[in-house]
Amino acid sequence: MTCQPTELTRADVTRAHGKIQGRVKRTPVLSSQLLDDHYGLQLFFKAEHLQSSGAFKFRGASHCLSLLSNEEKKRGVVTHSSGNHAQALALAAARAGVTATIVMPEGSNPLKKSATEAYGARVVSCENNQDAREATAAREVEKTGGTLIHPYDDWRIITGAGTAALEFLEEVPDLDAIVTPLGGGGLLAGTCLAASEQCKVFGAEPEGADDGHRGFYSGTRVVSQTPDTICDGLRTCVGELNFSVLQHHLTGIGVASDEECVSAQWQIMTRMKQVIEPSSAVALACIANESIPVSGKVGIIISGGNLDMGPWFCPSTT
Amino acid sequence: MTCQPTELTRADVTRAHGKIQGRVKRTPVLSSQLLDDHYGLQLFFKAEHLQSSGAFKFRGASHCLSLLSNEEKKRGVVTHSSGNHAQALALAAARAGVTATIVMPEGSNPLKKSATEAYGARVVSCENNQDAREATAAREVEKTGGTLIHPYDDWRIITGAGTAALEFLEEVPDLDAIVTPLGGGGLLAGTCLAASEQCKVFGAEPEGADDGHRGFYSGTRVVSQTPDTICDGLRTCVGELNFSVLQHHLTGIGVASDEECVSAQWQIMTRMKQVIEPSSAVALACIANESIPVSGKVGIIISGGNLDMGPWFCPSTT
Repeated sequence: MTCQPTELTRADVTRAHGKIQGRVKRTPVLSSQLLDDHYGLQLFFKAEHLQSSGAFKFRGASHCLSLLSNEEKKRGVVTHSSGNHAQALALAAARAGVTATIVMPEGSNPLKKSATEAYGARVVSCENNQDAREATAAREVEKTGGTLIHPYDDWRIITGAGTAALEFLEEVPDLDAIVTPLGGGGLLAGTCLAASEQCKVFGAEPEGADDGHRGFYSGTRVVSQTPDTICDGLRTCVGELNFSVLQHHLTGIGVASDEECVSAQWQIMTRMKQVIEPSSAVALACIANESIPVSGKVGIIISGGNLDMGPWFCPSTT
Repeated sequence: MTCQPTELTRADVTRAHGKIQGRVKRTPVLSSQLLDDHYGLQLFFKAEHLQSSGAFKFRGASHCLSLLSNEEKKRGVVTHSSGNHAQALALAAARAGVTATIVMPEGSNPLKKSATEAYGARVVSCENNQDAREATAAREVEKTGGTLIHPYDDWRIITGAGTAALEFLEEVPDLDAIVTPLGGGGLLAGTCLAASEQCKVFGAEPEGADDGHRGFYSGTRVVSQTPDTICDGLRTCVGELNFSVLQHHLTGIGVASDEECVSAQWQIMTRMKQVIEPSSAVALACIANESIPVSGKVGIIISGGNLDMGPWFCPSTT
């Protein structure tokens, strides 16, 4: 496995971008006159919900795959994830002809579980807690000899995720700020590396999983919490490596309630015609409630669109 | 007003494209690996639901505005429409500083009516039938001295709508076919002019408003019907000028049931993460039910995304 650089920089993100070019989609940047008028801002949305596997996670997963030796590829990859990283690694591995073993908690979204299986991964169930996830993944690594790929606390994942911001700034070079959702911190840390020399970078968290906000402003990482939020992609605590990157490069973190997230999701679905998951909406929600102070040209990375529409998509045909 | 060319050709669409450049969005072309795998085709979607006003209609409306003399602009424009043409003309007129009077049937979608008013147009209500629409619009023309802009049976609207196909073929030059929804026929006739020298062109209609299908294959235009379909943008009969263009250039027309349209809409919303109205889904529905025989690289024009999500968007926040 390629060794971790001693200190992560923008150059590492640029290198990652070179490695994954042609493997990941260059997603479009969308905008809406109605939303701009509503907020008195120029908003730009990097549409990572249109990325392969439906989330930015495919960038980090593809980057990891690109760095494996042939020997490592033969032994396969292992991870634990309840959602988008599971699907992303399953698809990236399938495209590289590599076996993927994904440990998923029993309570995972059935849609995300079946998509992971559809991409050809072997799914191993475990109990619904962090310890069970890590122990089960460790057992699978031992059994298969595969390479463990952590969903966010990993320099390959962070630099891979940062390539979205790199493309964003190529397309809109004079952004005043970029805002991304904050869960484990892969996307936000990568965005910091890619963009903090050029513009402000903010994270956005749901109230019911605000460990990042508390940790960043107190100076001490919060290592456990009992999340209570509709944003299922943002329930984890910020990773160790991720936290240290944020401490060096981040401008600030905003927080929004679930109701504010749903309202922002509704705006994006009706005004921008984009199907996104609630976790993706927290960035706009934090701009709406002004917990993130922005002005001018603001970039938002839409992190994912793997929404289970089943329960509430019941259009009448009459 | 600029006179109608004696015979419409691709050159008229190219000219229209020159006139509206900078006024309309160049919408992205989207694709989905999952849909490609599902259908065994390479599908490309021209995202006109991301056009200003949420539908391709903005192209024709902007084209009409660009052709008015200063004197005509002072007197304003008038149209009748229950939906996307209303919003498109209202917005195009507002941007050109021109007064718009829009006759809308009482039964129009309240969302589309309020959007038309929000764009600054004067909305005049009328009864829910074609005669009342035309009579009321004629009265408004007499009263205001404004220029009547028909929603589809007008060469400026047809050639303006055709610019979407022009851009589509610039982006994907080797399309084997383009499929568009068929209502009044503005989009389909314009697409025929722009594309029929390069590839096959198909129309797609809902079963409950299949006048185009019956007329095209019998050789005689159907001039009235009692539509019964969820596809509210496709309930009108094909226009006279539109029909004659289709007779000269169209490859064929497919038909799909409302259930098939909803199923295709569901696929596009979950797989492609795009919010579209049912009228936009009929093209994919006709590919799915094989009433349109296509192979290879197939382009679909998504016509609009002005969906009233209110009745069924009720996500739980717990």
